[in-house]
Amino acid sequence: MRLRQGNPFLIFTVFLALLAGLQPVKASERLVEKQRFSMPAFTTFNGSTIKNLQVGFESYGKLNREKSNVILITHYFSGSSHAAGKYSQSDAKPGYWDTIIGPGKAIDTNQYFVISVDTLVNLNVGDKNVITTGPASINPDTGKPYGLSFPVVTIRDFVNVQKAVLESLGIDSLYAVIGASMGSMQALDWAVAYPDKVPRMISVIGSGEADAWTTLALEQWTLPIKLDPNWNKGDYYSRTPPMEGLTASLMMLTQQALHPEFINAANPHHNALDNKVLNDINQSPAVVDWLRTMAEKRAQTSDANHLLYLVRANQLYIAGHNKALNEALKAVKARCLFLPSNNDLLLMPYMARQVHNRLLELHKHSYLTEIQGNAGHLNGLSHIQSQANTIAAFLADKELP
Amino acid sequence: MRLRQGNPFLIFTVFLALLAGLQPVKASERLVEKQRFSMPAFTTFNGSTIKNLQVGFESYGKLNREKSNVILITHYFSGSSHAAGKYSQSDAKPGYWDTIIGPGKAIDTNQYFVISVDTLVNLNVGDKNVITTGPASINPDTGKPYGLSFPVVTIRDFVNVQKAVLESLGIDSLYAVIGASMGSMQALDWAVAYPDKVPRMISVIGSGEADAWTTLALEQWTLPIKLDPNWNKGDYYSRTPPMEGLTASLMMLTQQALHPEFINAANPHHNALDNKVLNDINQSPAVVDWLRTMAEKRAQTSDANHLLYLVRANQLYIAGHNKALNEALKAVKARCLFLPSNNDLLLMPYMARQVHNRLLELHKHSYLTEIQGNAGHLNGLSHIQSQANTIAAFLADKELP
Repeated sequence: MRLRQGNPFLIFTVFLALLAGLQPVKASERLVEKQRFSMPAFTTFNGSTIKNLQVGFESYGKLNREKSNVILITHYFSGSSHAAGKYSQSDAKPGYWDTIIGPGKAIDTNQYFVISVDTLVNLNVGDKNVITTGPASINPDTGKPYGLSFPVVTIRDFVNVQKAVLESLGIDSLYAVIGASMGSMQALDWAVAYPDKVPRMISVIGSGEADAWTTLALEQWTLPIKLDPNWNKGDYYSRTPPMEGLTASLMMLTQQALHPEFINAANPHHNALDNKVLNDINQSPAVVDWLRTMAEKRAQTSDANHLLYLVRANQLYIAGHNKALNEALKAVKARCLFLPSNNDLLLMPYMARQVHNRLLELHKHSYLTEIQGNAGHLNGLSHIQSQANTIAAFLADKELP
Repeated sequence: MRLRQGNPFLIFTVFLALLAGLQPVKASERLVEKQRFSMPAFTTFNGSTIKNLQVGFESYGKLNREKSNVILITHYFSGSSHAAGKYSQSDAKPGYWDTIIGPGKAIDTNQYFVISVDTLVNLNVGDKNVITTGPASINPDTGKPYGLSFPVVTIRDFVNVQKAVLESLGIDSLYAVIGASMGSMQALDWAVAYPDKVPRMISVIGSGEADAWTTLALEQWTLPIKLDPNWNKGDYYSRTPPMEGLTASLMMLTQQALHPEFINAANPHHNALDNKVLNDINQSPAVVDWLRTMAEKRAQTSDANHLLYLVRANQLYIAGHNKALNEALKAVKARCLFLPSNNDLLLMPYMARQVHNRLLELHKHSYLTEIQGNAGHLNGLSHIQSQANTIAAFLADKELP
């Protein structure tokens, strides 16, 4: 395969676990264990109660005596708390930000206690390493899966569950909060909602609120699911799930998180005038089969209703979860670092820049530098290593390179 | 409504005919009549036969004695041959490029005979002013609609039908061919397939071939249609058509042809944290309802199978309809002008630039200048007037401004 840059394709396949037959990544020395947090009742932002809330979490490094070295990593839409390390030496791949989280790395686990929590309504509910509560969970009141009776949850709810997990460990405040994409929303919401607990915030491929464009872009992913007759208005846990709709949704999500440069480089033998598709309307172009095969694999461990609830949480997002973002940002006490991707087509760089500029107008400490790469939105994962020095300097309160 | 620029919103509503209650546009003096072209049998690029082919066409200005003043306008994906003028004085809006086609305008109908042809498999088959042949047409052999038994057609087939229309009028060669988006594909294919007939070619928001990215982007629009159980594998002409799938497809198509700047300006009161959607997963954000209402109106006169066939024609597109674009461009004799849109998210400016650069490498006459606007791909319609002087100069073989 001809690739303009070798790295992003490898990282893409590693993180999304979409392609078969990969060489295993060099075994990590550090093993990580998924832990479980339970809460008998959690009150959501919209005032509902979730009974018997369960989420998974992972940690890397050691909590110091003062509990003052905690860095919270908040995960992206299709991610989980598996930010670094491996579960076993034989794992093909480590967590998604393993290039920047570990001993001696940008987020140095010799120094920091790094923790990450599976969100509510996590997409990967079928992954044995993910623990979450959402529409696919059993409602204790009925003994049956919630389906669409699960309450709408918000980015603030993800934040408040993380806060409860931290409190269960006796942790009252953070050294920093760092997240990519939907994780950036949680990170900024932390800085607005709990300014006294957040002295440093890093937003990677992030935004301050869901504008009209983003709300519509997210809605696209819901359309094929709702059109799949197997979706059955969300009631499919005792029957065939809407795999075709979910697969179509994941096809769209995967493409939109990338960039033409990446997709074209990954398909160097693409040929528009293919005889198979020229002669039969029922055939698909090879590149469509390529994307669909990846999406079908992802769909095996994903849940359609969870995807709808994640979309909704993102659509409702405005940092501070109040009316005006500009007002909400006044509360921020954190030094902020924004790392948008130069060619992001999903959360375009203007979104991070708007928040950054507003923070500067408010005389806050804010820095912004663009990640350069060919992978669009996914530069925030595949090219994060290029910002290692910036992240390390920011965390050390040093001049940025 | 707060709009960064007034014009694009007006033009958007005019062209897409999506919003109610508009002031009628200033009545045009010129009335245009849809004409019908019939052909007993047409052989497609893939070797199939379409019997009793019917397409509509329109013309503006007068054909001169030498038949040497013909400008062919090739239309975009969701367009028709209604490029300029009105059908009656009471029409709310003129054809889509009326700002540049008319007496004394950039494409001066005092000088040129301007003609445009409805494509095969035209999306707007339910519009009384569109005449097309496609899956919704009656197959003379069976007396029933073709559905998916209609042959796959290509951009070359659109070109060859246009050529047949022109020949029926005794026209052997063109003064120029000009098209936007899918129209640009036809324009460039004309220049490659029939170089001796095409001395001038203008590609607006165009491309030279469907790369892997574009093939996938187009495929997205097919997904909701195929998931709608009413689609019924394309066999729905005697039952309920797949209106929900078609509406979802048109929602995606409409958004993707625009740009965040435009969508956000058109929805200045958008509020992410809306109580209705916070409290009920079955409710939609207001901006989603806004887009869906527009798409539902478009769906009334559109056909789902026609949309699938249009996607396929675009996916199969490579100018010259042969293996290598770079080779094919060697045939071009036309002076070429490329007008990509600065913030196009559908056919990004790199696509036109690649063809332009290749033509320069081949020592062809090629010019490129970007249309600036806030409407993304649709700048090719809404902001075309900004290129009026460039187009007029190009057509007059003068130095470009």
